[in-house]
Amino acid sequence: MIYFKARNRNPVAMAATLALATAPLAVQAQQSTEERLSALEAKLAEIQPQATGEEGFSFNAYARSGLLLDDDLQSASGGPYLTPAGSVGGAVGRLGNEPDTYLEAILNYKQVAENGTKSHYRVMIADSTSSSNDWTSEDGALNVRQAYVEFSDLASFSGIFKDASIWAGKRFDRDNFDIHWLDSDFIFLAGLGAGIYDIAWSDNVKSSFSLYGRSFIEFAADTDFVPEGSYSTDNIILTANNYAGNFQWMISGMKARDNDQRVVEGVTEAAETGIHTMLAYHGGSFFGVSDGNYKVAVMHGQGLGAETKNIGSDGDLHEDAVSTRFGVYGTTYLSDNWRLAPAILAETSKDRYLAGDEYQWLTFNTRLAHEIAANFEMQYEVSWQTMDITTMGYNGREDVDGDYSKFTIAPTFKPQVGGFWNRPEIRVFASYSTWDDALDSYAVGDALGADSDFESGQWTFGTQMEIWF
Amino acid sequence: MIYFKARNRNPVAMAATLALATAPLAVQAQQSTEERLSALEAKLAEIQPQATGEEGFSFNAYARSGLLLDDDLQSASGGPYLTPAGSVGGAVGRLGNEPDTYLEAILNYKQVAENGTKSHYRVMIADSTSSSNDWTSEDGALNVRQAYVEFSDLASFSGIFKDASIWAGKRFDRDNFDIHWLDSDFIFLAGLGAGIYDIAWSDNVKSSFSLYGRSFIEFAADTDFVPEGSYSTDNIILTANNYAGNFQWMISGMKARDNDQRVVEGVTEAAETGIHTMLAYHGGSFFGVSDGNYKVAVMHGQGLGAETKNIGSDGDLHEDAVSTRFGVYGTTYLSDNWRLAPAILAETSKDRYLAGDEYQWLTFNTRLAHEIAANFEMQYEVSWQTMDITTMGYNGREDVDGDYSKFTIAPTFKPQVGGFWNRPEIRVFASYSTWDDALDSYAVGDALGADSDFESGQWTFGTQMEIWF
Amino acid sequence: MIYFKARNRNPVAMAATLALATAPLAVQAQQSTEERLSALEAKLAEIQPQATGEEGFSFNAYARSGLLLDDDLQSASGGPYLTPAGSVGGAVGRLGNEPDTYLEAILNYKQVAENGTKSHYRVMIADSTSSSNDWTSEDGALNVRQAYVEFSDLASFSGIFKDASIWAGKRFDRDNFDIHWLDSDFIFLAGLGAGIYDIAWSDNVKSSFSLYGRSFIEFAADTDFVPEGSYSTDNIILTANNYAGNFQWMISGMKARDNDQRVVEGVTEAAETGIHTMLAYHGGSFFGVSDGNYKVAVMHGQGLGAETKNIGSDGDLHEDAVSTRFGVYGTTYLSDNWRLAPAILAETSKDRYLAGDEYQWLTFNTRLAHEIAANFEMQYEVSWQTMDITTMGYNGREDVDGDYSKFTIAPTFKPQVGGFWNRPEIRVFASYSTWDDALDSYAVGDALGADSDFESGQWTFGTQMEIWF
Repeated sequence: MIYFKARNRNPVAMAATLALATAPLAVQAQQSTEERLSALEAKLAEIQPQATGEEGFSFNAYARSGLLLDDDLQSASGGPYLTPAGSVGGAVGRLGNEPDTYLEAILNYKQVAENGTKSHYRVMIADSTSSSNDWTSEDGALNVRQAYVEFSDLASFSGIFKDASIWAGKRFDRDNFDIHWLDSDFIFLAGLGAGIYDIAWSDNVKSSFSLYGRSFIEFAADTDFVPEGSYSTDNIILTANNYAGNFQWMISGMKARDNDQRVVEGVTEAAETGIHTMLAYHGGSFFGVSDGNYKVAVMHGQGLGAETKNIGSDGDLHEDAVSTRFGVYGTTYLSDNWRLAPAILAETSKDRYLAGDEYQWLTFNTRLAHEIAANFEMQYEVSWQTMDITTMGYNGREDVDGDYSKFTIAPTFKPQVGGFWNRPEIRVFASYSTWDDALDSYAVGDALGADSDFESGQWTFGTQMEIWF
Repeated sequence: MIYFKARNRNPVAMAATLALATAPLAVQAQQSTEERLSALEAKLAEIQPQATGEEGFSFNAYARSGLLLDDDLQSASGGPYLTPAGSVGGAVGRLGNEPDTYLEAILNYKQVAENGTKSHYRVMIADSTSSSNDWTSEDGALNVRQAYVEFSDLASFSGIFKDASIWAGKRFDRDNFDIHWLDSDFIFLAGLGAGIYDIAWSDNVKSSFSLYGRSFIEFAADTDFVPEGSYSTDNIILTANNYAGNFQWMISGMKARDNDQRVVEGVTEAAETGIHTMLAYHGGSFFGVSDGNYKVAVMHGQGLGAETKNIGSDGDLHEDAVSTRFGVYGTTYLSDNWRLAPAILAETSKDRYLAGDEYQWLTFNTRLAHEIAANFEMQYEVSWQTMDITTMGYNGREDVDGDYSKFTIAPTFKPQVGGFWNRPEIRVFASYSTWDDALDSYAVGDALGADSDFESGQWTFGTQMEIWF
Repeated sequence: MIYFKARNRNPVAMAATLALATAPLAVQAQQSTEERLSALEAKLAEIQPQATGEEGFSFNAYARSGLLLDDDLQSASGGPYLTPAGSVGGAVGRLGNEPDTYLEAILNYKQVAENGTKSHYRVMIADSTSSSNDWTSEDGALNVRQAYVEFSDLASFSGIFKDASIWAGKRFDRDNFDIHWLDSDFIFLAGLGAGIYDIAWSDNVKSSFSLYGRSFIEFAADTDFVPEGSYSTDNIILTANNYAGNFQWMISGMKARDNDQRVVEGVTEAAETGIHTMLAYHGGSFFGVSDGNYKVAVMHGQGLGAETKNIGSDGDLHEDAVSTRFGVYGTTYLSDNWRLAPAILAETSKDRYLAGDEYQWLTFNTRLAHEIAANFEMQYEVSWQTMDITTMGYNGREDVDGDYSKFTIAPTFKPQVGGFWNRPEIRVFASYSTWDDALDSYAVGDALGADSDFESGQWTFGTQMEIWF
């Protein structure tokens, strides 16, 4: 309350008294406001990175789970690797073709040191089962797939190392990339080791180097070499991964000591060393024709490097094995609400496991989606694979030569329709699969085989969810 | 600092100058305060849902772990399913009667799309062991029990679907409910499939529909049908779950193709189909007598539906199997600090596994708690079960007819005493169990059997923690 | 906008009008500012504990993963327990000597009740494998090692219990402590039970009491006692852990009913009871000589207590077994950027498993680090162990008497160099190991054995990450 005597009629004094009488109220309130604002801003700055997962704990995941049934209401065979070519990586389209529950639970922990160096710990637990039951302790495969640490923004790194990061532990390589619709990586480099990413030779040119170890565990070995006939060794893989703009050139050499003592179908000619290389292009449009993206790559490997995708993971490879693989995919919108993702994956492999064998296959796949409503779209997939395989009796398999086709229609619900990489999705689907009889005899018990319930010219259907974040 | 020349004695000008000179300070400070407040409010609104788990990652769990010892300081047999009737779901009271460590770790991830649609991903990992050791890689049962996605608040859903949610994957059904003190669900519907919850026919009437698949894995089958004598199939369950106010009517039909080729004790009469239904009431008081809650339900099933709780999970059921089960429980306060939870569970089953068999049992259980201090209460449990079982030799079991009783006293510590559903609890307990000799011969190696260390008229004691959130 | 008629020349009125006209703006803005500030402060106070993990969910971990290779690029034997003495706890230095991926994922959940009582739920999942592969479902050992609840700040606890906390479930005891560089606890008390921590007799004197159960699962037993020759029992351990200032006195008694029926190398003389005690000092300097810390302890045990570290975990111990163990370590800085951590661990054990046996060993280990740059330091480790073991044929082992030495150099990267307990670390390393031939014959297939690839006078090298938080 401002009280002043009207009798003092000095206007200056009176005006000053009045104004200054109210001003302090305003000024005082501002001071405590200032302190409180600053305190709030400081606290928020402290907890924001932890609340958003930028620092401290954060969670990522991949999961798919669904029913794949034949018209007898029984689980059908399936999976992108169900064909004979699938046994050597020849994948077909995955939509309406997955009978399993596969998931990855990824726990991250990020810290920033006082000097600004960042560290990121990641552990990944995964499981895979084809059982529909809720209790799967006998049918599951829970295991740890990754546990590594990566340092970035290192305070003492400068020059060409300024943006480099270093890592050690067990991991999937950061730069692996895939053709999603075939559930096939172009490259899956993984194992236990250490490396450095992103040495920047110039603005546009950078390299990463790594050492990965993989284990070849208890394989049949020449009894002249090891009397008990069982041996284990390590495959040590050195890789240089180089980028110039959108181009990528990757080269790996590997050695698995004494793997040449491995016995494959009675023969001791497995590879002890290997070499693998890839040339790839990561395009920012749909082949220069429209908006979207595309990736194309050629992979070539010899000896232990002839497993062109899972680098260094196959110890059965012959010392003369040679493989060349080609992969390409693109994504684009045909119109406002039709989107398209075609893909091709093909490989030719000679002397892969046994002298004289030959594996040739080519897959063409297209995923088409029609975005109909805010939460609903119709997805279609057409998949065709041709293969010509001469096994020389490896793993008891017989030669096959023929084609496989699949067509799938999948009404799909999603929180927000639009884009190729939005998940989660809930689908119901129907698939029609057909293949040449000539494929039936590849291996006893395999999906397309004569002794399987799954027969050519068959409809399968089901429901599935898929999510990643 | 306000400086003005007193010589200009225009009072209006002077007053205006003064007031307006101080006002801007206040106004300026308000502007930056305004901006800062708005910025803070915006940031807080952004991180609040993630910090509280309303969006992004959140964690739920169930866990119990404890020692159950006899007076020789050795682990005693126990568990709510320890009696002969327990082999077909006849549970008794669980307090002071659990020898295991069982836990569920539930990881959630919630997202809200721009159009308001919400999605919720849940993965549950569980483990069960009776080993007290810290390393249980040989004795544990770690597995994934759930992995599903559920969409709610779908932007494109309206009318009767406005509050509906859809889901797919492997899950426990959302509307399962239980008699906690017996560790027995009324209904445990779970498996792999898809469904829709809460189609609202009117304000008070809603329905949910689901398809669940379950797996019958490698059971003994008629060699005329499958030469190797082992077969697997899927049980496909369709369910409609309907609510009108507090009333619930649930009906399920199921088919497991070729399960009628299953061999049970040399006979090929297993069911291929089944039907199951339940009528339940979810009361908001203690039977209308006092504050609290109660639930009562009658379940009836035939063929594969004769497993009245774990719907569709038992493939041994006979084609003529018929079961009727009744369950009821209530919770109420007898006074300010005495609370009571009585429960009854009973079932009659004919031709369950083999023609001519009969399983009849009734459990009466009461949990009583006396809240004594802020962190301490005394809990009591009285459990009585009568059973009359004619097995016809199923699983080598013999007929039994008799009673089982258990009395437990459990001094209990909790962070905040009060209510039936507050956890965690840390208990020490002593239990006295007694049963008729006639129950000793049911099965070789079972808990109450003649060859077990656990004998009628025995005290057991121990300690346990239980938590859920 | 302030509008006033200049014609009214009452200066008081005019000044008052002006000042009061602007003051309310300021006052009004302050009111809504006040409300908004208070609202922000309240919301922040609510979410802060959850964002920081003080309440709700939080994540802790330990992990190491690395390659340990010989000069053939094959995995080498290793581990701190690789020597003959390691079979009874005689650890050597771990740097550059670990061939495995071992990790712990710890999920915590903390709650505060209205009455202030706090509860903390902890579940720990762990895995161990020596495979370098990313898929280890056949080679891993994923299991749950802890699941317990602990209450603290109990509202009803006062007097000597005021700061006490109570717990139940399966856990590692809170007060276990270790010599990190040997990967050996002084004391590892763990299992399933309940206890109370920190009863405060006075400001400086406190005690904790616990009951832990451990399981002896399916051991060979006297067929006079149990015809099938296999038996299981529980080891029940009662412990009092007492602190007076920096001094600690721990005493445990244990009983494993019927363990005296266990058959060890044809003899039935295993212990049924045991006693264990430890006297320790936790120093706040480097032995009073410089800044740092040190710990020294003497452990003594008889019967089942003769396993001096993993209390109560070894049921093979002889009824006359007697062990005395000594451990000491210290940490200090020698200069600004050289730090040192020497350690000694030694034990003498008689009649440990078989009458007449004797196990004597002493390990001396030193870890030295030279902090060179913000992210880089050089670490060195020298480890020497002498042992003299007379086995009397236990587990088919032969007598050994000799020394083992290891020297390791490890260039190490860390986010922030400095201190003994900062992790994560990424290391590359080279180790040189040498030992007396006399150690080669201890056990068939053991790391230093004649039939192993690992030979005395050998270099090994590799890379490793280690992290904890």
